[in-house]
Amino acid sequence: MQNFEYQNSTRIVFGKGTIARLEDLVPADARVLFAFGGGSIRKNGVYDEVRAALGKRTVEEFSGIEPNPRFETLMKAVEVVKAKKLDFLLAVGGGSVVDGTKFIAAAARYEGNDPWQILLDAGASVKDAVPLGVVLTLPATGSEMNSTSVVTRGATQDKLHFASPKVLPLFSILDPETTFTLPERQVANGVVDAFVHVVEQYLTYPVGAALQDRQAEGILLTLIEEGPKALAAPKDYNVRANIMWTATQALNGLIGVGVPQDWATHMIGHELTAKYEMDHAVTLAVVLPSLLRKQKATKREKLVQYADRVWGIRTGSEDERIEAGIAKTEEFFRAMGVKTRLSEHNILASDVAQIAAARERHGLPLGEHGDIGRKEIEEILEAAV
Amino acid sequence: MQNFEYQNSTRIVFGKGTIARLEDLVPADARVLFAFGGGSIRKNGVYDEVRAALGKRTVEEFSGIEPNPRFETLMKAVEVVKAKKLDFLLAVGGGSVVDGTKFIAAAARYEGNDPWQILLDAGASVKDAVPLGVVLTLPATGSEMNSTSVVTRGATQDKLHFASPKVLPLFSILDPETTFTLPERQVANGVVDAFVHVVEQYLTYPVGAALQDRQAEGILLTLIEEGPKALAAPKDYNVRANIMWTATQALNGLIGVGVPQDWATHMIGHELTAKYEMDHAVTLAVVLPSLLRKQKATKREKLVQYADRVWGIRTGSEDERIEAGIAKTEEFFRAMGVKTRLSEHNILASDVAQIAAARERHGLPLGEHGDIGRKEIEEILEAAV
Repeated sequence: MQNFEYQNSTRIVFGKGTIARLEDLVPADARVLFAFGGGSIRKNGVYDEVRAALGKRTVEEFSGIEPNPRFETLMKAVEVVKAKKLDFLLAVGGGSVVDGTKFIAAAARYEGNDPWQILLDAGASVKDAVPLGVVLTLPATGSEMNSTSVVTRGATQDKLHFASPKVLPLFSILDPETTFTLPERQVANGVVDAFVHVVEQYLTYPVGAALQDRQAEGILLTLIEEGPKALAAPKDYNVRANIMWTATQALNGLIGVGVPQDWATHMIGHELTAKYEMDHAVTLAVVLPSLLRKQKATKREKLVQYADRVWGIRTGSEDERIEAGIAKTEEFFRAMGVKTRLSEHNILASDVAQIAAARERHGLPLGEHGDIGRKEIEEILEAAV
Repeated sequence: MQNFEYQNSTRIVFGKGTIARLEDLVPADARVLFAFGGGSIRKNGVYDEVRAALGKRTVEEFSGIEPNPRFETLMKAVEVVKAKKLDFLLAVGGGSVVDGTKFIAAAARYEGNDPWQILLDAGASVKDAVPLGVVLTLPATGSEMNSTSVVTRGATQDKLHFASPKVLPLFSILDPETTFTLPERQVANGVVDAFVHVVEQYLTYPVGAALQDRQAEGILLTLIEEGPKALAAPKDYNVRANIMWTATQALNGLIGVGVPQDWATHMIGHELTAKYEMDHAVTLAVVLPSLLRKQKATKREKLVQYADRVWGIRTGSEDERIEAGIAKTEEFFRAMGVKTRLSEHNILASDVAQIAAARERHGLPLGEHGDIGRKEIEEILEAAV
């Protein structure tokens, strides 16, 4: 096991009726930016619950944070925070709203000339941030309990991430009932996203970290069991609760301590989203199976363990078991209604070189061994057409 | 799933050579109480590493915190903290030293007349505490990443616990190499203790908390796999690392969120330790199998799941599978060298009434259904003779 540090102080408030807790979680004298996305929270009652719980505090609303939040949009919110001297940010929505609010938090207190630098140096230049809290309405990214944010610059199609302990949410309210009315596509995407977060931290090479493996496998097994139920019975509280808590645990740092991590699937996927506006999870579902096949040699031991412990595949040659495990993964994504081939998104072999070139511009090589360069990305994408 | 809150801000610094990190983890101007137990840290080099890392800070040593730390001993340390105006406590040792230091932290800032009140009200009266950090040398209790402490009053044989967020360690350093020289008995006790911590949070009744079940099962499986290896190969770093991290995860609150909890085994066990000075883990190994058999009806569904997922028992009637799972548990404890019968500790059926009476004095009923009273404790103990 590798040496590690782990600290995560986000206060999780989980369960039915917990949005009312904002009343005591947000400082009584706070001047609040209430940040959200589109209109869904107005339809499902969350907007009203949040406004009621915030009571007589000064509240400025900022709506319109889009999926794959844009730098250009977020900078408008930064102006509001500065102009109105707001001192607390409340993100209400899914991972995009939370990620966007983290960037607003850091950019509003940024001392340099251009806050885009925060993305260029992956957060190294963040010295301070406005405190923030979260009301989560879409389980997927884990952003509600980590220090990471992904932001897209529309003008240049750059999708980059940053991380800083300064933007870790002080609290996150997770009420599974807020997810009852989610569109199927978002439920499915959330499950796939959480699944791939685990895989990025688990399917590398063994370092003898027995518990982290078991914890990762436990999350995968839960998603495999509960994901399809969420589509079949959207108002089953326990199913929604399990998916919500599982997505948080998939990327709050815990399963990644002391082990190598990959993240190549995410890095390649970001290019597909930036160029084609594909849903984040959809890019992962396309890239992952192909990447696992390509990296079979270096991920061999963990792929065999994955096939065994997650999919119960214990017969056949090692290669057969590995392939069966990857095939099961792809089947699971498709059973959730998420397509797994580039051609299903009208992306063809002739587009591949350009995607790989964009990734090269944002930094290579990728993977836990640093052995995925431009040529390997092209091969992974060609095999995923 | 039940509603829950979860927050745990302890900073974990894990791995080889990490004791040197005290240099930056303890405030540079701190006046430190260096609290430890017997002489083992002087023999294995930990004492020297700690002193070197603390450098020129003002350090008062307080040694002699015993297993099942005594109120009488700890109050002497409280006097030192007050007399020398110390403002940081460093616990170096196992769960008893950490628990004892938590009590010192709370008692030194206690405003009431008698700090024993902290135990009588289970921590409700704790308003402040001296900040504390930990260097863990014995994986077992999980105290390094939780807010709980157990203290024994020698004069009255009362063994009571308290909890307060004020005594959560700011940081805990976990260097698995410090455990290489532990006596076999302490290794075995630690594994059994961690195992039973998980069982207390897992083997109750189902509430649809799928991930918590998987996480609990992952810890149990890891202990079953790694525990015997630690006895067979005491200097295998990964084995030691796995046991250390697993014991922390067993009682840092995570697997217990949103689920009912039992703790009757611990409560009954505390009486055995208080009266007979039995090792804490030994009391658990004696009580648990008998308690599970007694509570078979109310724990039925989880006992079947436990037999299946933890022990791979999938054939036979439900009752047979349950009994086989409990028998495997007992076998595991014995394979670790921990005895499981009261008579092996010279406690006989004629002693049982007195033990149950002592428990009644400290509060009944016990268990997740509150259905374990004096009569049931007597039956559990009689069956464990």
